[in-house]
Parts: sequence; C-alpha cells; structure tokens
Amino acid sequence: MHITVWNEYRHEKKNPIVNEIYPEGIHGAIANALKDDGYDVDTATLDEELHGLSDEVLNKTDVLVWWGHIAHEEVSDEIVDKVVERVWAGMGLIVLHSGHFSKVFKKLMGTSCDLKWREAGEKERLWVVDPSHPITNGIGEYIELPQEEMYGEHFDIPAPDELVFMSWFEGGEVFRSGCTYRRGNGKIFYFRPGHETYPTYHNKEIQKVISNAVNWTAPLDRERPVYGNAQPLESIKEK
Amino acid sequence: MHITVWNEYRHEKKNPIVNEIYPEGIHGAIANALKDDGYDVDTATLDEELHGLSDEVLNKTDVLVWWGHIAHEEVSDEIVDKVVERVWAGMGLIVLHSGHFSKVFKKLMGTSCDLKWREAGEKERLWVVDPSHPITNGIGEYIELPQEEMYGEHFDIPAPDELVFMSWFEGGEVFRSGCTYRRGNGKIFYFRPGHETYPTYHNKEIQKVISNAVNWTAPLDRERPVYGNAQPLESIKEK
Amino acid sequence: MHITVWNEYRHEKKNPIVNEIYPEGIHGAIANALKDDGYDVDTATLDEELHGLSDEVLNKTDVLVWWGHIAHEEVSDEIVDKVVERVWAGMGLIVLHSGHFSKVFKKLMGTSCDLKWREAGEKERLWVVDPSHPITNGIGEYIELPQEEMYGEHFDIPAPDELVFMSWFEGGEVFRSGCTYRRGNGKIFYFRPGHETYPTYHNKEIQKVISNAVNWTAPLDRERPVYGNAQPLESIKEK
Amino acid sequence: MHITVWNEYRHEKKNPIVNEIYPEGIHGAIANALKDDGYDVDTATLDEELHGLSDEVLNKTDVLVWWGHIAHEEVSDEIVDKVVERVWAGMGLIVLHSGHFSKVFKKLMGTSCDLKWREAGEKERLWVVDPSHPITNGIGEYIELPQEEMYGEHFDIPAPDELVFMSWFEGGEVFRSGCTYRRGNGKIFYFRPGHETYPTYHNKEIQKVISNAVNWTAPLDRERPVYGNAQPLESIKEK
Repeated sequence: MHITVWNEYRHEKKNPIVNEIYPEGIHGAIANALKDDGYDVDTATLDEELHGLSDEVLNKTDVLVWWGHIAHEEVSDEIVDKVVERVWAGMGLIVLHSGHFSKVFKKLMGTSCDLKWREAGEKERLWVVDPSHPITNGIGEYIELPQEEMYGEHFDIPAPDELVFMSWFEGGEVFRSGCTYRRGNGKIFYFRPGHETYPTYHNKEIQKVISNAVNWTAPLDRERPVYGNAQPLESIKEK
Repeated sequence: MHITVWNEYRHEKKNPIVNEIYPEGIHGAIANALKDDGYDVDTATLDEELHGLSDEVLNKTDVLVWWGHIAHEEVSDEIVDKVVERVWAGMGLIVLHSGHFSKVFKKLMGTSCDLKWREAGEKERLWVVDPSHPITNGIGEYIELPQEEMYGEHFDIPAPDELVFMSWFEGGEVFRSGCTYRRGNGKIFYFRPGHETYPTYHNKEIQKVISNAVNWTAPLDRERPVYGNAQPLESIKEK
Repeated sequence: MHITVWNEYRHEKKNPIVNEIYPEGIHGAIANALKDDGYDVDTATLDEELHGLSDEVLNKTDVLVWWGHIAHEEVSDEIVDKVVERVWAGMGLIVLHSGHFSKVFKKLMGTSCDLKWREAGEKERLWVVDPSHPITNGIGEYIELPQEEMYGEHFDIPAPDELVFMSWFEGGEVFRSGCTYRRGNGKIFYFRPGHETYPTYHNKEIQKVISNAVNWTAPLDRERPVYGNAQPLESIKEK
Repeated sequence: MHITVWNEYRHEKKNPIVNEIYPEGIHGAIANALKDDGYDVDTATLDEELHGLSDEVLNKTDVLVWWGHIAHEEVSDEIVDKVVERVWAGMGLIVLHSGHFSKVFKKLMGTSCDLKWREAGEKERLWVVDPSHPITNGIGEYIELPQEEMYGEHFDIPAPDELVFMSWFEGGEVFRSGCTYRRGNGKIFYFRPGHETYPTYHNKEIQKVISNAVNWTAPLDRERPVYGNAQPLESIKEK
C-alpha cells in the first residue's frame, strides 16, 4: 500500500511559528508518523510541478492525505478532476482540517462545506461516538487537545455515512469532527483537527487516528462497475 | 407553495411517439397532475431565455421538478450554480429519470451518477422498502409499470439518506429507484421512472409519488445557518 | 390526529421542587403546550389502570409522547409489547430525556441505551445539525438551557437515521440530543432535554420542537406490508 | 481471531436431501470454508449443552456465525441475552438466511424482521450496490444462484447502516440481501442466501462473502465505554 501526503506547504514558509512546529512541513510530520507505522509514504506539495500529483503518482497512490488552507484556489481544476476520479476508482482520501474548503472535498460532497471558525487557542475534546469503528482502534473515550482553532456547527456537509467523532469546544460550540463518506469505489475520511499554529500532528492519538484511517480507506481488489448499455440477463417477453 | 416543473422539452418536438404521449410535454403532464392536487405550478423549459429559470423564477420556487436527457450539456453552468445554491438555501428538488445525468444532480451528489441502461420495453416493479416514509403515502406494496427503460445497478450515487423504492426489472436487474438526500437547507428526491416513450407520468401512482415528494421536499421556515468567524459563547481561559 | 402524553408521574408527587415546576405534572405541561398548537391531546400515567394505555387508547393514538425515569421496571411487559407493536403499525413515538432507559425505547433500539449523566445544574446548548429537517422548523441555530442535567457520550444507541440536534455541556461533554429512527411503519424521535427539577418543558423552543416532532412522527395512510408465504408475480422456469 | 459457527442442526438430521448436501451440517460446510481461508474456527449446535455457547466459548469468540430456522423458540432466553451482550461488547455477528427470525437478531434489531418468502427453486441474483465495501472484496458485479428460496420486501428491519447487496428474484421480488449494523462495540452483517435444500454454502462466492464479513465484523482493541455518573471535565459556574 502506497500513501501520498499532500500539503499546500505555504504557512510553514511564511510563518516562523508554524515553521518551528513543523520544520519538515505538516506533510513531513504526518508522513514520518505513518512511516513509523510501517507504511510506504511519499509527499507532494502545491508548488511542485502538477502540484506533485502527476498521473504516475496518482495511479500508484492507494490513499491520499490532503492538507490545504490559504491556497485552495491555486490548485488546478484539472488536477482536482483527476483526484476526484481516482477516488471514484477506489483511492482512499483523508481530508484534514482546513481541507474542508478544498476544491476536491467540496466537489465530492456537493455542498458548500462552510462552517463557523475562531482562532482563540481554546481547548477541544473529540469524543468517540462510534466505538465499533476501526478508525477509533486504540483510542480512549476522547482525545483532548489543549489548544486548537474552533470549527463549529452548522458544518454544511451531507450527513456522514458514519459519524465517528464529535468535538466539544471551550467557547461553546460542537462539531462533527470525524466523518466517513463513500463515493464510487472510494472511501473518504474527514478529520477536523490540525490548525497550523498548534502541534496537533505531533500528538500520538491524532497520529493513531490518521494511521487507522489510512487502513480504513484503503482500496479493495475490485474494478469499477460496468456502466452503460446492458444486454438483458433474462429473456424479456414480447408485449 | 410554488412549484416549477422544468423540462428539457426536446424529445416531444422531434419524436412523434413522444409527442403523442405527451402533447403538452412531459412538463405539462406533470404540472397538470400537480395542479389537480391543488398545487400552484408553473413550467420552464431549456429553450426559454435563461432556460426559464431567471432569478425571479428561482427565488419564488419552493420545489423544482427536473426532467432532462439528451441536452444536459446545453444547460448553462451559471444556471446550474444558481439552482444548486437555491437547493442549499432550502428549495426542494425532485430529479426524475434521466435527470440522474443532469449537471445539477451530479454537482449535488459528488459522484458520476452513472448506471446500466437498456431500452427493451420491459416490465418494472417498484417495491416500497420504507413504509414509514411520507413519499409512499397512499401507495400499495409496489407500483407495476408494464413497459419502461431499464436502469440497473451499480448506480453510482452516494448511499441515499433514505432508500424509499427499489426496482425489479424483467431482464434481471435491480435499482435504487427512490432516494432522498439533504444538501444544506434543501431536500432532494430522485425518482427513477419516466422514459419519454412510455406514458409513465400519466400513471396515477407515479403522479401520487411525485405529489408526495413535492410535499416532503418543501422548504422550512428557516434562514441558512450563519457561517464564518464566530465570537465565543463562553469565556475561554488564558493559556 | 390524536396525541397521548404518557408520564410516569412520580417525581411530581414526591418532590416539592418538581411539583412546584409542574403542578399539573410533566404530562400536563407538555399536553397544554400541544393543545395550544391545536392538537387533540390526552394524557396517561403509570398508576392508572393498564398505565392508562388500554387497547382502546393505544388504537386511537397517532403519536405517543413518553416520559419516565425512576419506575421503568414497573411498566408491565405486556403494555410494552403493545406499545412496540403499535409503533411497528405506524404510531409515532416521541421519547423524552430519561425515557432513553424505558423498556419501550430499549426494545425498539436493540442496544443498552446507556450514557453518562450528571446532575450539576449546568448549561446545555442544543445545536441544530440538520437545518433541512422539519423538526427544526422555526428554531434558531441553537437552543440554550441555563440549567439541565448532563447526558454525555458515548450514548449507546444505533446510529440515528437522522441526527437533528447535538448538545454542548458546560462540564465538557457532547451528546446526540435529537435522533430519529424508523421501525416498521412507525417513526420515532428521541429528544434529550427535560430533567424534572428544571422548567425545561415550559421553554417555548423546547415546546416547538416537540410540536414539530408530533407532526413529523405522524402515521401515514398505509397498512402494514403483507408478510409470509407469497405467490410468484412472474412465471418461474422449471429446472 | 477465533470464529464460532453456530447451527440449529435439525434439518440435516431429519431431511435426507439436506443431509446429502451438508453431510457435516451447514455449520461444517461454513467452518471448513473459513478454515481454508486460514481462520481458527469451532462449531456449536442447538442440542449441545448450553447450545454449545458456554461463557467460556462466547468469551473467546471474536465472530459468531448464526444459522437457525425451525427451532428459534428452543434457544434459551438466557443464552440469547448473553450473545446480545457479547455483541454489545464487541463480538462480530454474522446472521445467515432464516436467522432473520432468530431471537438474537430480532432483539438486536428492534423490529419484527418479517418478510415475504417462497420455496420455488427460483433464480436469485445478488447485486453489489456498494463497491467500496470490504465485504464485496473479490466479488464481481453480482452473484448468481440458480436455485434458492425467495425472500421478498418488505423486509421489516431498521434501515441498514450500510446496504451492500440487493437481490433480484425470478418470481418478481427484490430484497436487501447484505446489510450491516452496529450495536454498541459490535458489528453485525446479515446475509440472505442459504436455504437448506440448496448447496449455497458450497458456492465459492458465497464463501468469499462470509469470509470477508468475518474480517469486517472482527472486534477492535477497545473496552466498552464508561457509562453512568460522571464527574465534570470542566468547571461549572455557580448559578
């Protein structure tokens, strides 16, 4: 199984606070944690040619992890379409935090994906609401993050196929923080935490959830179904 | 409550068989049945200015019924975006038959919306799988259509929020024929039957389902939620 | 449409605080609010003969509202079975607050229905997570209750068919507070708030939600489906 | 991982046709196929002491496969309660065919689990409706069974968490044939085929689905959540 961690990689270059937390970039931190779990992982970033997502890269990617924020509009529509089609063909997709507003996620959801937000360094507590779900394997009843950006309801997404985590925020809001979706042959996991100015992706429990999600979104050994004109499988009576 | 029935209205003009079945167009047949149920109904068609869907028309429409087939690509992206945004704002949407491949439906689903199909004049039987659902009000255990186009699985849609009807086809296929979705403040119902060369929209049970669906997809008395930067509702501790 | 509001009616008789808040009983407060909305409403309580739920009463009840807490075990299994069967036959059921542990609700869910709880007079904020849902009609972005008992996740229920409200609690927990389920021909709404020592059912927004839910859970004009041995609808080939 | 295949084991002893198809019992055929896939498998049957499901057996079982038909009522309520509680604690459960009417399944569903049926040796075709689901791994677009008992809608179950297979029957019916549910920490898969007078469990594709389902329903490495009275995680203001 081959993982590609994609990152916009802009905050790290501009903001010394972010650079200090993620000297190898957010993608680097996530990739390192996945490598520690034994996965085969590469990274790709916005400013590479084709955003690092050539056909060759996409075709060998089993699960794509996506982090973006301030440069969603710079991602080319052609690459977005290719990513979406790879998901339909079975590639797993993990969308992190501000990736809720990426072209890829919005296109796959069919909604505005809007939400409430606030940068106040407040406490977040992510509660497990589906203890049968493999994405929660090895996680306790909740994950506590001492400081995070707030995302609040209403989160304008389709009702998730499975709701795995719900967040409590110190400032009074709640949020559907771990959501699964299926699109074609592909599985998608949206996971809320990960504002760039906090060391969220160094948190062992957050890393564990992402690692579990890589496993859960992994493609099957299946072709896309056959679509289009179809011969009858049974005889049809003359009328 | 104001209903707009939108039709591509091309088959009726080109194909005498279709014209004989639907002399007032598919939109006319559907609109007449809804008027008989006491609804306030207008129609709109592709070749009208702005496809008959000006801002004024869209803004006063509570539920939009959509039939299209051979001219999906002729619907302007600008109108598609406006329809999608009206759905997000609460307008009900009923997508009929070959409307599965309309730009509007595909954009709201986030999938290819592809399927198997066959024109063989075969029998279809739509089974009620959710007898608690208001869209099935007054309908028996199944609706039988002596001749219809076949649509077969895999139907490449997100898992419906509610699965209301499942079809059996003479030639050996099944299909998720009545599916509900929620997008933002809006409710959507996809209903499979209605190939242009059969008198499906003159069938009283089919009319009853569409009438029920108009009622079910009707907007609430609610604003869109507030999105964007939000002040805390509770005090946040200094850290 | 005929509504029956059922209440255990014990706290009100024993605890002067509860009696002061609900001099006509919790059932009386809920019934009065529904009457003000124009519904035809009766009440029934545990200590009446057959708990006030004779066959005659159940058969004429379109929607049953249920509040219980300390005497779940005193509800006879025979009456429980009759209520469950009426739900399957189409009767709407609204289960309030501590009714999560009622025999009726547990039997319809197939889970333990257990949860975390705390009586600390803390603030609860119920956020609307599905603004398309009729149960939220006329409700703003959230309902705030200055003092309530806390119910916290994990709430051991099946994933709701529709998740309508999510609660934030001052003490750090979240909860799936408004959940719909379908069982047979019947629709169920579980609604969290309503601890007996707070005037929750006098709150106009809470009353509005219950009134909306009565409307949403109302039965259709349908028979139960036909079950059992079935003759073929199509000819079956000899093999 | 340890699997227990439970079978009523009555038809095989009474009916020579069944005995010829399943000389080692239905449980034997299923267990042998799972052993071939490398699983650690035992069997248990109704007429053993405690139906072969002692506490020791249940506690070491990770996934329980269940086949029953004519003797559901002979399964003791005590054992049923223990199986249900083991599911809530995380044990996977695969319910096959006529197990839809078992006490265990009905108790976990909260519905009547009734359906239409017919023994006419007709053709069944199970269509994959969720090609992203691991239970369909390695399966083509459909599985065709030349002769099976018919089960038809309405199937009186809660809407499945995931609908994986839908059946077409020669006699004109459809059926939700592969359904997943989550109850507490446990995952459940209902799989329709397997009438005792046909060699369904010798079919390689049917065996593959059951093997996939064993993997999918396998328990996580998690405790049950903590329920009951809970101390606040945040300070609560005096009011």
